[in-house]
Amino acid sequence: MPDASLLETFETPVDTPFMIEHVAEEFTSLCPKTGHPDFGEVRVFYEPKPAKDGGQCVELKSLKMYFQSFRNEGIFYEAVTNRIRDDLAALMDPTWMRVTTDWKGRGGIRSVIRADHGPIPGHIH
Amino acid sequence: MPDASLLETFETPVDTPFMIEHVAEEFTSLCPKTGHPDFGEVRVFYEPKPAKDGGQCVELKSLKMYFQSFRNEGIFYEAVTNRIRDDLAALMDPTWMRVTTDWKGRGGIRSVIRADHGPIPGHIH
Amino acid sequence: MPDASLLETFETPVDTPFMIEHVAEEFTSLCPKTGHPDFGEVRVFYEPKPAKDGGQCVELKSLKMYFQSFRNEGIFYEAVTNRIRDDLAALMDPTWMRVTTDWKGRGGIRSVIRADHGPIPGHIH
Amino acid sequence: MPDASLLETFETPVDTPFMIEHVAEEFTSLCPKTGHPDFGEVRVFYEPKPAKDGGQCVELKSLKMYFQSFRNEGIFYEAVTNRIRDDLAALMDPTWMRVTTDWKGRGGIRSVIRADHGPIPGHIH
Amino acid sequence: MPDASLLETFETPVDTPFMIEHVAEEFTSLCPKTGHPDFGEVRVFYEPKPAKDGGQCVELKSLKMYFQSFRNEGIFYEAVTNRIRDDLAALMDPTWMRVTTDWKGRGGIRSVIRADHGPIPGHIH
Amino acid sequence: MPDASLLETFETPVDTPFMIEHVAEEFTSLCPKTGHPDFGEVRVFYEPKPAKDGGQCVELKSLKMYFQSFRNEGIFYEAVTNRIRDDLAALMDPTWMRVTTDWKGRGGIRSVIRADHGPIPGHIH
Amino acid sequence: MPDASLLETFETPVDTPFMIEHVAEEFTSLCPKTGHPDFGEVRVFYEPKPAKDGGQCVELKSLKMYFQSFRNEGIFYEAVTNRIRDDLAALMDPTWMRVTTDWKGRGGIRSVIRADHGPIPGHIH
Amino acid sequence: MPDASLLETFETPVDTPFMIEHVAEEFTSLCPKTGHPDFGEVRVFYEPKPAKDGGQCVELKSLKMYFQSFRNEGIFYEAVTNRIRDDLAALMDPTWMRVTTDWKGRGGIRSVIRADHGPIPGHIH
Amino acid sequence: MPDASLLETFETPVDTPFMIEHVAEEFTSLCPKTGHPDFGEVRVFYEPKPAKDGGQCVELKSLKMYFQSFRNEGIFYEAVTNRIRDDLAALMDPTWMRVTTDWKGRGGIRSVIRADHGPIPGHIH
Amino acid sequence: MPDASLLETFETPVDTPFMIEHVAEEFTSLCPKTGHPDFGEVRVFYEPKPAKDGGQCVELKSLKMYFQSFRNEGIFYEAVTNRIRDDLAALMDPTWMRVTTDWKGRGGIRSVIRADHGPIPGHIH
Repeated sequence: MPDASLLETFETPVDTPFMIEHVAEEFTSLCPKTGHPDFGEVRVFYEPKPAKDGGQCVELKSLKMYFQSFRNEGIFYEAVTNRIRDDLAALMDPTWMRVTTDWKGRGGIRSVIRADHGPIPGHIH
Repeated sequence: MPDASLLETFETPVDTPFMIEHVAEEFTSLCPKTGHPDFGEVRVFYEPKPAKDGGQCVELKSLKMYFQSFRNEGIFYEAVTNRIRDDLAALMDPTWMRVTTDWKGRGGIRSVIRADHGPIPGHIH
Repeated sequence: MPDASLLETFETPVDTPFMIEHVAEEFTSLCPKTGHPDFGEVRVFYEPKPAKDGGQCVELKSLKMYFQSFRNEGIFYEAVTNRIRDDLAALMDPTWMRVTTDWKGRGGIRSVIRADHGPIPGHIH
Repeated sequence: MPDASLLETFETPVDTPFMIEHVAEEFTSLCPKTGHPDFGEVRVFYEPKPAKDGGQCVELKSLKMYFQSFRNEGIFYEAVTNRIRDDLAALMDPTWMRVTTDWKGRGGIRSVIRADHGPIPGHIH
Repeated sequence: MPDASLLETFETPVDTPFMIEHVAEEFTSLCPKTGHPDFGEVRVFYEPKPAKDGGQCVELKSLKMYFQSFRNEGIFYEAVTNRIRDDLAALMDPTWMRVTTDWKGRGGIRSVIRADHGPIPGHIH
Repeated sequence: MPDASLLETFETPVDTPFMIEHVAEEFTSLCPKTGHPDFGEVRVFYEPKPAKDGGQCVELKSLKMYFQSFRNEGIFYEAVTNRIRDDLAALMDPTWMRVTTDWKGRGGIRSVIRADHGPIPGHIH
Repeated sequence: MPDASLLETFETPVDTPFMIEHVAEEFTSLCPKTGHPDFGEVRVFYEPKPAKDGGQCVELKSLKMYFQSFRNEGIFYEAVTNRIRDDLAALMDPTWMRVTTDWKGRGGIRSVIRADHGPIPGHIH
Repeated sequence: MPDASLLETFETPVDTPFMIEHVAEEFTSLCPKTGHPDFGEVRVFYEPKPAKDGGQCVELKSLKMYFQSFRNEGIFYEAVTNRIRDDLAALMDPTWMRVTTDWKGRGGIRSVIRADHGPIPGHIH
Repeated sequence: MPDASLLETFETPVDTPFMIEHVAEEFTSLCPKTGHPDFGEVRVFYEPKPAKDGGQCVELKSLKMYFQSFRNEGIFYEAVTNRIRDDLAALMDPTWMRVTTDWKGRGGIRSVIRADHGPIPGHIH
Repeated sequence: MPDASLLETFETPVDTPFMIEHVAEEFTSLCPKTGHPDFGEVRVFYEPKPAKDGGQCVELKSLKMYFQSFRNEGIFYEAVTNRIRDDLAALMDPTWMRVTTDWKGRGGIRSVIRADHGPIPGHIH
């Protein structure tokens, strides 16, 4: 089952703002209704707090293990997305974060869910 | 014929704003003039109201059945698009919604129709 | 329901062998089990008999109407493919013909079915 | 020659703003200097006036016939684009319209010409 | 664990040879060494025996369930491929069959494994 | 109307066999039934006779002018293809030639027509 | 050597603002250090002044000849870009112009250089 | 090891603002934890100061040598990105600069890191 | 330096012939002339001997370590390719093997080198 | 002008047959009729003679210089192709060689010319 205790962080290296994006292309969980597997891609895009304010970054391998902990969980698309946003926001308290999940089609319908944390930085583009 | 009574909802899981996009790549209806089939893709992109305000999300399988109910309906591109926007807005009353239909070419001309509901949220990009 | 009487032919214009391929990208029928629509692409690739031997070609608009007659038929992938092969072979008696159907995924599995008529000509490549 | 009298309209179905895009991928006219054919793609993207204000939409088949009327006309890229913008603006008086022509290369140079009518709506993106 | 008893067949509909290809894009199993998930695509391409000889086809939904039974199995690429080939050959005894697995990269190396059953038919191309 | 007298040749430069392919991406003619324009791509692929045997190559600009002469001709796909094959075979008498026309979809069906002249050379691949 | 005297203009046809983009995909010059050829793509995107203000457009064939005049010039990427911007700005005095050069990689590094003239118009998107 | 002394500059040729982007597609360094090689793409996008203010541009070949100096360095993604940003900012003191590193997947997760220097110019798009 | 002693094998699991392909997309070595890094992709495609004849397969992680051992070796494209072919043939003695290296361009020229071991099996396609 | 004396060779490293392909994506020469530049891609694909028979390979940098020597030569597509084939065959006397030139479109027609030397090896595919 999803296990946020797997997540680890390291201190952000600088005070100047910068952006980090991790894209996990091989995410899988189970549909809570049918038990069939769902397959999707998870994107985590965030700006850590400055180092002087105790900014933290999520460690890459621990993020992978955390995503794998959803493998046999029956959980809806919307819940996966909000869960990851909440777990990572609690872990890192970033200046801004966006979690996007992009699900392969079921019954001919593809879905994308997106949840943000914090105000969008001015330099996002 | 298009049947909005097929649509079902579930309560949105959170109060924080988030975005949902469903893409139905296999939509088909009939041209009301010629009776020939039209083929297109329908996108529904919306932000549900917060949970505390009674926000609702459309249930995915019911959306699929609703789209299938257009299969033998003679209806123009513009009417399909506005009909779906109106039915889903009445169902969910979302903070914002955009319905886009993208039609394969007829006579060498492809068409895209887009109808919105509510003001575009600031965090849309 | 599938209606081979919709098909029309015209006489092939030459005695020298040549190849014709028609690709219908917007084929749809119904799954006989679930009633849900199936979407696919149908390819008909054939070499008509020479004109001196009474060679015939299928007329393009009639082929379109014939394909549309499957729209509300509950029929399996394999049966669609063999049915089209048989109907067109009976209609034109071509030197060689290949019918291929390519179906969008259901439950994460895409399928392609292919049925031939007559020996492959040496100049196929 | 270009013939705006071929164009027909129908009344826009709703009062709420919505956007329509037509893409004609097979446009051809003649170069007025050399007489050689030019090939390009024409996009018409517009927001009709609300129904209550007498908003009109261009009818799709008439648009196709209008585009075909340029087939044997010797006319420059810039003139094609502004002519279409002017003819359609006179026909529909839309809230906003953008006409874009995208021409295949001649002598190794591709060209895109774009002409607007009216102020860009805030919800364009 | 992989469970061939999930597989079902139906009788092939014709005596004339034809080809069937199923492509499962969302296959996953576990690496027996590390326990990390592997993700890949499985293709099954075969020619059933003629109906008069008792030819059988694998039923699509049962094939999906069979593939899902590998989800929590620790098994090497080579073993997955040969196992599927053996299970399906035992089930259908087809004239010819090819099973291909295409694995997403691990450590920067992608792999493709391919196992055949029976002699390649002359009309394969 | 199609005018083979526009075609010019030059002597092939060598005795050793070699292959030439010309691809005209902007071919257009008219449908003889409806008068609407057809758009397609024409490929001419051939091996000229050796220079010592009087081998000829078609001159590129004359080929372009010849293709343009179909612009306002009402002519079927099959007839275009065989006409080009016959005109070019009469002009050059090549060792081998293949003419392929690839037509954009009408009514959702794309078509490809292919006509050969002479036996396929062993080194074609 | 680069020769701005090759450039010709014609009067812009209208008073309403519109945009023109020319893309030359086959630009080549020489590296002033090594003498080896550089290959790139040049884009010129501009809004001419209104006709009533004497607005001018660059003539397409003259632009091609001007670009060809760089063929044997040893010149840096930055200089090419600013030179074209300056020559065309002097020629047309447009409301706004952007010149972009996109160079194929040398030593594994691709480069893009971009120079503007005038303030970006509000309707650029 | 990373060696900023390899970097060389030349004076920017003009006073008008312009943008330069260099894309190194073949960057490699080592993972400081495992010692395995990392592969990625580095983009440097910047606006030099005007010539009259002593604006400098990084010389392309020296940039290549500088990137190669990371080849056998064990260094994290975030550190590579901030190091390059800091070294180049110290070298050129540009009006604005963005350094982006795009890393091929490890364990199924791709990463993109982005660090800016200075305020984004208004004409960035 | 290239170190074949890093390679390990495991026994092939079956007697029936099957094919294995490994694609290493992130291969790098050094140019022996200039010392600059070369980047390429290495493909190893082979059919192991049957199990009953002592057939061996190369272990995937050891193959990765072997490829990494070329990282700081100055070696020509042709030598890399033949070296890998020879090392793997000595290791596994497969029925057939093909090693292909595909190198990113240097000075505008890309190169592909291919070396085989043993006769091509009849079922290769 | 084309200068075969720029070409250099090195001895092929092995006796076992192997294949080499060089792809020059940035070839340019001049049209002998109009003087305008032609742009294309040149592929040289060959099998050197075995080392024991004195097999030679063309050196990559010398090949690049040789291709650059066509830059200001007025020469037809067919002549370029046969000239390169003849020069390289005289230089290396390979077991087999294929030279292909692929030219960007002029007047809407793209061309590909292909010339071989020696019999196609059995293992070409």
